Amino acid sequence: MSARSTKITPISGFPEYLPQQRIVEQHFLDVIRSTFELHGFPSIETRAVEPVERLVGKGGDADKEIYGVHRLAGDDEGDGPESELGLHFDLTVPFARYVVENAGKLNFPFRRHQIQKVWRGERPQEGRYREFTQCDIDVVDVGELSGHFEAEMPLVMAEIFAKLPIPQMVIQVNNRKIPEGFCRGLGIEDVAGTLRIVDKLDKIGPEKVAALLVEAGRTPEQAQACLDLAAIRTEDSSFVDRVRALGVEHPVLEEGLAALSAVIETGRVAAPGAMVADLRIARGLDYYTGTVYETQLVGHESWGSFCSGGRYDELASDGKNTYPGVGISIGLSRLLGLLLGKGLVTASRKTPSAVLVSVADEASRPASVAAATALRARGIPCEVAPTAAKFGKQIRFADRRGIPYVWFPDAGEHGDQVKDIRSGEQVDARADTWQCPEEDLRPSVVAVEE
Amino acid sequence: MSARSTKITPISGFPEYLPQQRIVEQHFLDVIRSTFELHGFPSIETRAVEPVERLVGKGGDADKEIYGVHRLAGDDEGDGPESELGLHFDLTVPFARYVVENAGKLNFPFRRHQIQKVWRGERPQEGRYREFTQCDIDVVDVGELSGHFEAEMPLVMAEIFAKLPIPQMVIQVNNRKIPEGFCRGLGIEDVAGTLRIVDKLDKIGPEKVAALLVEAGRTPEQAQACLDLAAIRTEDSSFVDRVRALGVEHPVLEEGLAALSAVIETGRVAAPGAMVADLRIARGLDYYTGTVYETQLVGHESWGSFCSGGRYDELASDGKNTYPGVGISIGLSRLLGLLLGKGLVTASRKTPSAVLVSVADEASRPASVAAATALRARGIPCEVAPTAAKFGKQIRFADRRGIPYVWFPDAGEHGDQVKDIRSGEQVDARADTWQCPEEDLRPSVVAVEE
Repeated sequence: MSARSTKITPISGFPEYLPQQRIVEQHFLDVIRSTFELHGFPSIETRAVEPVERLVGKGGDADKEIYGVHRLAGDDEGDGPESELGLHFDLTVPFARYVVENAGKLNFPFRRHQIQKVWRGERPQEGRYREFTQCDIDVVDVGELSGHFEAEMPLVMAEIFAKLPIPQMVIQVNNRKIPEGFCRGLGIEDVAGTLRIVDKLDKIGPEKVAALLVEAGRTPEQAQACLDLAAIRTEDSSFVDRVRALGVEHPVLEEGLAALSAVIETGRVAAPGAMVADLRIARGLDYYTGTVYETQLVGHESWGSFCSGGRYDELASDGKNTYPGVGISIGLSRLLGLLLGKGLVTASRKTPSAVLVSVADEASRPASVAAATALRARGIPCEVAPTAAKFGKQIRFADRRGIPYVWFPDAGEHGDQVKDIRSGEQVDARADTWQCPEEDLRPSVVAVEE
Repeated sequence: MSARSTKITPISGFPEYLPQQRIVEQHFLDVIRSTFELHGFPSIETRAVEPVERLVGKGGDADKEIYGVHRLAGDDEGDGPESELGLHFDLTVPFARYVVENAGKLNFPFRRHQIQKVWRGERPQEGRYREFTQCDIDVVDVGELSGHFEAEMPLVMAEIFAKLPIPQMVIQVNNRKIPEGFCRGLGIEDVAGTLRIVDKLDKIGPEKVAALLVEAGRTPEQAQACLDLAAIRTEDSSFVDRVRALGVEHPVLEEGLAALSAVIETGRVAAPGAMVADLRIARGLDYYTGTVYETQLVGHESWGSFCSGGRYDELASDGKNTYPGVGISIGLSRLLGLLLGKGLVTASRKTPSAVLVSVADEASRPASVAAATALRARGIPCEVAPTAAKFGKQIRFADRRGIPYVWFPDAGEHGDQVKDIRSGEQVDARADTWQCPEEDLRPSVVAVEE
């Protein structure tokens, strides 16, 4: 178990947290999971590996990013061709496979949440990791999927954001049918090629997009109309009138406008200010067919989207049935990378312990252990001092970890005492009745003022 | 996202659960984590990968089992030699590395818990997986580690077992100094070789062990004494007298007897019946130097140990400091594999939802969403019916998922009503005041009578 032999250095792209940072991460995970559960999304987990042939060709550029997995011993010949495995790079591809594999045992429409690590072998850079945690919800049905789920997804996320100690999040919503119908109404035949160019708006700006569109065969008027559409962003359904003012008509455009209106109006009622209609949002992935979501952290727009997703008419298919779905995913590691990296959030201590039970001398350790047992029996996290050092040293032990209380068995005239080491106040207390203040029971996780 | 192209089959050794089974797993994980936290063990997670050179040669036979990881794109030349990575096969090797890497930022003695998946490329068989979850606690210190931690570890686990809906667990405890000192007292020079043979007792029985010992150069008397020692198993400290009755003396033996007595007596007081002194327990791993633990599920002894660990004088070393530690680990996937495989435990439903809010017609869906929002605001998990089907069909939707209550907005003379679909009782209720019975708020996870 010696670590002597090798120099120890972090591996780029594989972040690890100290205990105090991990408490922040756990708080985020707890809020995310409990909110998913409040909305009736049970958890599933899928294995970390999929057959490589299932991973390649899914999700755009992902081919380059896949980590292959092989036994170092290498005697895989008995395992057959399915032994060529890779680590999953998202949770959607494994979920699609899980749905088909278990279709006979699931109740549709099937809701699930999934919080797991994924791996991508891309070049690490700020906010990009090779190992990171995604938090997904999806609803999938057989054959048809009701449109109201498209309004439900972002509301779950808005509720999570409102509970977390983070700057404001704005969920940008669009419907793929709007730009698609708009292009068709303009008489554009290469809709996909056109949208791919418009999608570069954030990176290269409107002038260069217009030039590229004309280069690709669009007229200057078509190019300008596409840019006018992409510039529309409203907090309510007024985007409909602004689109109509552009004078383009197509039945698919009308479908998209109606669907996006329904999502935005539901959001206005349930979570005012959380969502905007943003007709620039396209999402790079080709399989989205209806509503699409991206999310900006206000004041940190340059970091891109922390929560994205959309509707796909064919999440999965097994030849007999097609499974349409809608889903949305929080990129938790990216969000925490920003917040912890910039010191925008912190935990009040480095340990779950609310109390350190002191030890007067080693002979009386059993009394300290008994006090700790009595505290734990009432749900108060605590630990016993490692040595019977001077009390000052034991208090410093607690202080360094942020533990707010030190317990002193048999220290007073009437028995035990407890000290709040922040105020210095020390009072008589009994381990079987003392009330730990609710706000001290668990570490608190709070935003730090910039 | 089509799943058409490839036949979908499970991958041997990589178990996946249905939502109802996952609820069982989550309950176990929640009990384990909350108990670890009650005892003041903060969480850490380490990356899934370590440099291969750090993994090989650690943990006995593990070399054969390591999964290597490589980017399929393969242009790793820029990453340097550290890019030869493998998936971790336990949580101890990464923890040792983490301690050395972060020693300057950790407070010692450092306690931590770690609940993560690990991977081993061994041949899958009953109760053995290639991907599985381990739940570890360890305490590590610099230079010296107090002995009282060796009594604390199994008590945390005993508390977890008492909270879980499982058959009785018995933690078998030994101290490596007892067989070692005993051998030395017998005049045996090859202590390690002797103990390796005695360790085969469970597999081949006492006669064959005796024969092997004699073959390896022990006298028949030495072989018999070793077997006599290994046969000692007591629930209290009476093992000391039984060892003394064998007439062997050595200072290391005395150290071991005193240390094991302290652990067993602490256990007798704090968790009667949870621990036994079992002098047969050796643990295959070579790095244990003091107390060692194994755990049997009563009635399922043939499955081997579900919870093991021990003390190591050199968990890690960085050339300047040595870090002794003591730890214990639950093999959660193995335990659940047994319990779920044999149907010994189940969850009361397939979803966190306690309530299905019905929808009378699509036009009134907003009223159903509002009722659901009001229920969630008071912590009641619920979901809204996917379609405005006949109420009978909506009730069957709830019934198939095990959701106990169906909510009917505006169904009664005075407003909303709620039906307990188990009893059929339907009463007036308001979404902002209705009390969901505590036992129905979350799925319950219970043992099934054999």
